[in-house]
Amino acid sequence: MRILTGIQPSGTTHLGNYFGYFKQNVDLLGEEENLLMIADLHALTSVHSGDELREYRQSLVRDFLACGFDPNKGSLFFQSYVPGHAELAWILGCVTPMGLLERAVSYKDKVQRGLEANAGLFTYPVLQAADILIYDADTVPVGKDQVQHIEMASDIAKKFNNRYGKDLLVSPVPRVVKEVALIPGIDGQKMSKSYGNIIPMFGEEKVVEKAIMGIVTDSKGVEDAKDPDESIVFAIHALMLDAAEQKDLADKYRNGGLGYGDAKKMLLETFFDYFGPMRKKHADLKESELEEAVQMGAKHAKGIASQTMERVITAVGLV
Amino acid sequence: MRILTGIQPSGTTHLGNYFGYFKQNVDLLGEEENLLMIADLHALTSVHSGDELREYRQSLVRDFLACGFDPNKGSLFFQSYVPGHAELAWILGCVTPMGLLERAVSYKDKVQRGLEANAGLFTYPVLQAADILIYDADTVPVGKDQVQHIEMASDIAKKFNNRYGKDLLVSPVPRVVKEVALIPGIDGQKMSKSYGNIIPMFGEEKVVEKAIMGIVTDSKGVEDAKDPDESIVFAIHALMLDAAEQKDLADKYRNGGLGYGDAKKMLLETFFDYFGPMRKKHADLKESELEEAVQMGAKHAKGIASQTMERVITAVGLV
Repeated sequence: MRILTGIQPSGTTHLGNYFGYFKQNVDLLGEEENLLMIADLHALTSVHSGDELREYRQSLVRDFLACGFDPNKGSLFFQSYVPGHAELAWILGCVTPMGLLERAVSYKDKVQRGLEANAGLFTYPVLQAADILIYDADTVPVGKDQVQHIEMASDIAKKFNNRYGKDLLVSPVPRVVKEVALIPGIDGQKMSKSYGNIIPMFGEEKVVEKAIMGIVTDSKGVEDAKDPDESIVFAIHALMLDAAEQKDLADKYRNGGLGYGDAKKMLLETFFDYFGPMRKKHADLKESELEEAVQMGAKHAKGIASQTMERVITAVGLV
Repeated sequence: MRILTGIQPSGTTHLGNYFGYFKQNVDLLGEEENLLMIADLHALTSVHSGDELREYRQSLVRDFLACGFDPNKGSLFFQSYVPGHAELAWILGCVTPMGLLERAVSYKDKVQRGLEANAGLFTYPVLQAADILIYDADTVPVGKDQVQHIEMASDIAKKFNNRYGKDLLVSPVPRVVKEVALIPGIDGQKMSKSYGNIIPMFGEEKVVEKAIMGIVTDSKGVEDAKDPDESIVFAIHALMLDAAEQKDLADKYRNGGLGYGDAKKMLLETFFDYFGPMRKKHADLKESELEEAVQMGAKHAKGIASQTMERVITAVGLV
């Protein structure tokens, strides 16, 4: 089973990212063939400064390695280091009906949210299809909002196979990662950099503290019994606890006597216990280790991609 | 001065191609830096069989060499042999407003003529911009119908430079090749494979004869005086004559006594005189000579393209 995860470098990594896909990705290591692609070509649709993109890209590698991604057990690489993504996207574009792209919900959403309506954003799903199909990926773990894109990749693969020969490209299956939608930010909405409600994993202590102490609560007093299922502080805290610890904490909420200020301080302590070792590794990693990891990952990815491209360009007549 | 000409391989080369751009391209050799690109990636928007594309592509190389293209004086190459075209197209797509593409006349035309409305066809001008900009081409000889695309390439270059740094990409200037619109097919419309009115340059003698003898005429008798400016036979014949010969022939038309049957036979004779040496070379060229020519051309083209791509990916943050 080969799994591809693509992640756009977009700056600060936060708890939502970690529990959304970092952790799952690290947990997968060794069990399945794990390709972790930093989608820097995609990032050009939203990051418009070369220096920013360079920094985001590099810091994402550091974040993943700090979180325990072992480059000997999976392949971490930059999309742009593997030749063929853009060429395959062009080739697939020639079998992708305009109607398919016009129906894409995420394009409309992004434009509504204020992103520039450009050709890159519009053809994003075609490049995404190329990313998946170039690796013959069986499974793509995605959030619910990305399921349509994986279905489009599958449609595009079928159209290509219909025109040029069956079984040339492998139709992928989405694996919906439920948690992605469930991790609340400090205001209760989905945690997202664009909502300004994140808890940064590798931020300075002061910044983390400010974020956690700023989590929105209701106005219940210290002695009041509190419903843990209604509390954002609890929801975030629970992510870092095992089942027994969750139950203990929930009881404390229900019994009354735990004020939100103290509850946040407990969360803060858990945060630094939980992420302490990762934060230390994050600070210690050398640039050369990052470079070595992505070069190793790219080498493996290139090996797979070049085989697919050989098959594809032969089929379409470019060889 | 660096000149780029891109040509889509689409099958049989005809007189319209020859006098439209083959001849000019060969005439340019040595005087300016001449890049002649066989746009095989573009061809995927209309050629949907791998074997056909392979054949079209190969025969276009043979045709150009037969017409006198000297691979030591210019660079003849396949677009897909030079890495970077599709990647640059993706990068440029991220600065190309959807409105620019939506206004493209040729997309609407092609869809109206029955081509499939797919993403490749829609983003065709972006790949074309990449083709031009990757070679820092100063001038692009095009037919009138392609002027909008060159202007779009120039707009896209400006948008890119605005975002990432001035003078990164060179804005090209179209050089309108007037003749392209003027060469009539055997029915008087513009000569075009899609109108079924061509005279094939390298077709079998019988096929050429059938085409020329089938040129549409009016119903004037042998003895009638004929206006050469009204005659398709004359218009096609004149392409292969110098000024003095054209005058002589025009007089024969005006004087009467020359029937269309004989006029066509004279044209046929001129055709085989004019194209005889090219037709011989066409038959004699070895496959190895074709391969050698495009490899040489691609080597030169790669040298230029890789410099541009280095500049571009550094600017956008992919290095």
